[in-house]
Amino acid sequence: MGTLKRLGVFDSGLGGLTVLNEICKYNTGLDVVYFGDTARVPYGSRTVETITRYAEQDVRFLLSQGVEAILIACGTVSTNCLPALTKSFSLPIVGVIDAGCQAALRSSRTKRIGVIGTRATINSRAYEHRIRELCPDAQTWGVECPLFVPLIENGFAPDDPITELTVDRYLSQFKGAGVDTIIMGCTHYPFLAKTLQNHMPDVSFINVGKALSYGLKEQFDLPRTQTPNRVSYFVSDEDTGFLDIARRYLDAVQADNVQKVNIDQF
Amino acid sequence: MGTLKRLGVFDSGLGGLTVLNEICKYNTGLDVVYFGDTARVPYGSRTVETITRYAEQDVRFLLSQGVEAILIACGTVSTNCLPALTKSFSLPIVGVIDAGCQAALRSSRTKRIGVIGTRATINSRAYEHRIRELCPDAQTWGVECPLFVPLIENGFAPDDPITELTVDRYLSQFKGAGVDTIIMGCTHYPFLAKTLQNHMPDVSFINVGKALSYGLKEQFDLPRTQTPNRVSYFVSDEDTGFLDIARRYLDAVQADNVQKVNIDQF
Repeated sequence: MGTLKRLGVFDSGLGGLTVLNEICKYNTGLDVVYFGDTARVPYGSRTVETITRYAEQDVRFLLSQGVEAILIACGTVSTNCLPALTKSFSLPIVGVIDAGCQAALRSSRTKRIGVIGTRATINSRAYEHRIRELCPDAQTWGVECPLFVPLIENGFAPDDPITELTVDRYLSQFKGAGVDTIIMGCTHYPFLAKTLQNHMPDVSFINVGKALSYGLKEQFDLPRTQTPNRVSYFVSDEDTGFLDIARRYLDAVQADNVQKVNIDQF
Repeated sequence: MGTLKRLGVFDSGLGGLTVLNEICKYNTGLDVVYFGDTARVPYGSRTVETITRYAEQDVRFLLSQGVEAILIACGTVSTNCLPALTKSFSLPIVGVIDAGCQAALRSSRTKRIGVIGTRATINSRAYEHRIRELCPDAQTWGVECPLFVPLIENGFAPDDPITELTVDRYLSQFKGAGVDTIIMGCTHYPFLAKTLQNHMPDVSFINVGKALSYGLKEQFDLPRTQTPNRVSYFVSDEDTGFLDIARRYLDAVQADNVQKVNIDQF
């Protein structure tokens, strides 16, 4: 394949915008189609069978938009469906697990590594398996944090006492584990990065989108032009608030001109 | 129409089981088909167009099961889609608004009435309009509580400090309104009834499912046999935890033998 002309990026909703934001920060000349499945968000509390069916429809929509490669900007899909998607489709598809695990192992001194994510992500143990493939001596702890996505999507600020109490509840499960690095295994979680960091100041929190965007040039033959990135935004349900939050927190993406798609048809 | 042979009941997820529980408590000889759209829950943060499309599919599935009448055990669908559903389908369809408003007006001395619900329910103002139709002098206050459904579905106990803090946050918006009655406009909320009551001990909280079940005999020609109710359960995604919670809190329904349906096909 020659230079990548068009890249597809998708997420269960709009958390994947944190990934897109990192990609746009570190690259130029990209032509990106972003799809957020806002009519069926969240994926993380559903069964693997349902998540896979939804992800296949998401990929088929992106194919209809002429993308040549796909980046899964969703922790739940990356951890539960990557083998199935790679089997069903012939174009290159990349998830966030590998980059996230590599970054965590680079960051960790003790090789005691935590993972936070949705229920489906933690149940898959995909981050943990990959870490041990890369470093058999590493020890891992997974903690599911099912309330983080609803908190973020419903506009609770990172320093809201309810957010703080929820962060405290989930992170306290790492007590005694002695982790020095925690992978934010869901692409929504960077919205909570400061709060997480305040609760565990000595721990490095890994933003999987950032990790992925660093190495994107190794995965794909990216354009070498300096023209600004061009992004088309599609969602399966119209904006009901979260897009405003995304615009407030993200600096490298616009999230304007959002078009609606009936994803059931794909 | 003669005696109702088969009643369909549906909800965005499993909150509607609180309604089914009340119906089964006060009636006998019923043959009920329950459908919970667990593959697409929650509805309350989506647009009216998407909610209506989902609700139409839910009704078509119940029709395929031979139901003769339908009860919408979902605040969001009742408040946003009842006219559209009544127009699209010829069988009798009943929502929770009317019974909820009648019960609130019976309960309220001051006719200062609050409504709590999902974002879509509160935006619709459907409860508030119906209350003023029934009692033009009544005053109403609507407060959206988008975190309640995720808290309940993710197993946060009613007395969990995070639940308590969230209840306090939302109910504090009624400060100064002087309401003596609040309609729980979402069928999930009875799971939080005790916590809500503790935070506002002088207020009557209306369970719309209970209100509806009292008057069901007036709406439908129900069977007069004393045989136990028979319920078939269907969901669009398999149980991922909430069903256990439902079984723990509900006394009149079993929620066993749950079958899975691909709702996209309807």
